[in-house]
Amino acid sequence: MPTFPASTLTRFAADILLAAGVPAHKADLTAESLVASNLRGVDSHGLQLLPFYIDQILDGDMDPLADGRVVSESGSCLVYDAQNALGQWVADTCCRHAIRLAAAQGAAVVVARESNHFGAAAWWAQKMRAAGQIGLAFCNASPIVPPWQGREGRIGTNPICMSVPGPWLLDMATTTVAAGKIFKAMINEKPEIPAGWAFDPQGVPTTDTKAAYNGGMLMPLGGYKGSGLGLMVEILCAILSGGAMANDVGGIRIRGRANRCSQCFIAIDVARFMPVEEFTARMERLVHLIKTTPAAPGYDEVLVAGDPEWRTEAERLRNGIPLEEGNWDKLVRTAARLKVELPTASVQ
Amino acid sequence: MPTFPASTLTRFAADILLAAGVPAHKADLTAESLVASNLRGVDSHGLQLLPFYIDQILDGDMDPLADGRVVSESGSCLVYDAQNALGQWVADTCCRHAIRLAAAQGAAVVVARESNHFGAAAWWAQKMRAAGQIGLAFCNASPIVPPWQGREGRIGTNPICMSVPGPWLLDMATTTVAAGKIFKAMINEKPEIPAGWAFDPQGVPTTDTKAAYNGGMLMPLGGYKGSGLGLMVEILCAILSGGAMANDVGGIRIRGRANRCSQCFIAIDVARFMPVEEFTARMERLVHLIKTTPAAPGYDEVLVAGDPEWRTEAERLRNGIPLEEGNWDKLVRTAARLKVELPTASVQ
Repeated sequence: MPTFPASTLTRFAADILLAAGVPAHKADLTAESLVASNLRGVDSHGLQLLPFYIDQILDGDMDPLADGRVVSESGSCLVYDAQNALGQWVADTCCRHAIRLAAAQGAAVVVARESNHFGAAAWWAQKMRAAGQIGLAFCNASPIVPPWQGREGRIGTNPICMSVPGPWLLDMATTTVAAGKIFKAMINEKPEIPAGWAFDPQGVPTTDTKAAYNGGMLMPLGGYKGSGLGLMVEILCAILSGGAMANDVGGIRIRGRANRCSQCFIAIDVARFMPVEEFTARMERLVHLIKTTPAAPGYDEVLVAGDPEWRTEAERLRNGIPLEEGNWDKLVRTAARLKVELPTASVQ
Repeated sequence: MPTFPASTLTRFAADILLAAGVPAHKADLTAESLVASNLRGVDSHGLQLLPFYIDQILDGDMDPLADGRVVSESGSCLVYDAQNALGQWVADTCCRHAIRLAAAQGAAVVVARESNHFGAAAWWAQKMRAAGQIGLAFCNASPIVPPWQGREGRIGTNPICMSVPGPWLLDMATTTVAAGKIFKAMINEKPEIPAGWAFDPQGVPTTDTKAAYNGGMLMPLGGYKGSGLGLMVEILCAILSGGAMANDVGGIRIRGRANRCSQCFIAIDVARFMPVEEFTARMERLVHLIKTTPAAPGYDEVLVAGDPEWRTEAERLRNGIPLEEGNWDKLVRTAARLKVELPTASVQ
């Protein structure tokens, strides 16, 4: 597989965004956040997304020049109208507001409407964590998930993400898997996906990648509870922000219209409860207690949320980021379309 | 089955609590919250809990006279030391603080440590909802759930609950089912539980009620994601409050020691975002969109979180609350122990 250092890919991605008309400061933070996902091994939310973003920009479905604006700020609460700006720019702006408000008040709830795909939620929750806060990030998304017992998509994979000072980081779709995993299987021509991931277009469970991709739907995590969690996220994002809900939300793979997704950022200032160092030490103790649990039959060890990604990150920082052929080919075509030079520093 | 009007059972439960030495105001709110769960059909969190609470009180494991105290209040954040008081009293007190702080600041995060079982989280989240707020309630619990890939219990069923102005109410354990469902099967002598609910004491999946009950463990919802959600709740409760974590938490069925669980209440003042009437109308529209989804093969209709419970509540308000024999027998023995007269107004 073509393999590159993170810095090379970040420059390459930023160059593509620049060539598509994205201002430099937005291109840089978007490139950085996407490559950070690849580093963590979450390739579904890495550069795989970039060609879709570029399509959106070149087709005029997303406005890379828009900045959005604060609609209202009241106490710990802020509403942001993203005005169809680049999602990463919106998330970065909203995280700054959340950090500022939580530092001033102890907690903050910031919601953005009329936004766009912001990449992996973990990147943004970690911004709050870096400020000594508990960061929660949520977003709604394309209506590809049927409610439990239903057979048409109504809500998105609606992730729940929490980052805290300490060795633990949760970022999970409220479906069995994130949509990107099915797109990844499709792009890379894997004919089968595991059972429990998706329904076919008739609402029947399927393991056929094409049936899941072409009009199929993702399964809510664990059935009705996953549907409940998905709606919890829809409420915190779409209802609270005054944004588009359910089937009014578009998607990065849908042309001719704005995405119109919403995002919610909740920040909690740890220092209001105890010194951040004490909180971190308590987190380390909790994670130690969990990871020293004897392994169940068939397993070697117990991991906590964040562990697999930190391991991959350490490995990819040393050895570079491998890109699967399907993803790389799509990036090459996107670069050619914008006359952007390909990186030559492959470490394969 | 013995069947009673809610008011009769509330009086009966309050009399039992009074006879065990609980002050009247605390007895009343505990009785009301437990019977509210029975009304909603959530019998696992109804009067089935009362004999355990009484055992805790009579054995000196819980202090019904303690009120707890505010340790710190800073901006939107409050830490409460429950001092081993009755869980319902602690939750009621903390919800009042959360409502007050969210009304003043827009959002509030209130955490209680050294607390006791507070019944169903939904009762408390609905207190915040009644104040025009989004209410989130979390608690940690007896360490009967192994982390994913582990084979010893480390955390509890750690529920996630959210209530909002509008026809939707989520209250779910982060395990496939709540512990109460297995205890209910045991008390009522049902030999088999469904697959996916529990492990036996060796960490092997089981459908044997006794194996699940006697040293067995509950399964995290959907595998590793349920473990992640359970730890999210453990962090928001135990880590943030400075309380007992993981295996340091007791339980209502464990004698000779305090429960030491923690709780977290997050309130968000809807009016900071939009008028509550507008929020409610948006919720009604969302729920309508979900419930009009065509049903999948094998199902009649699509429900949202809260629907089954509201239906049961309407039915039980009309026809009374049936108590399964096992639960009723235990209540009869508890009443006899405290010389409390049995209710005679059965509507069976």
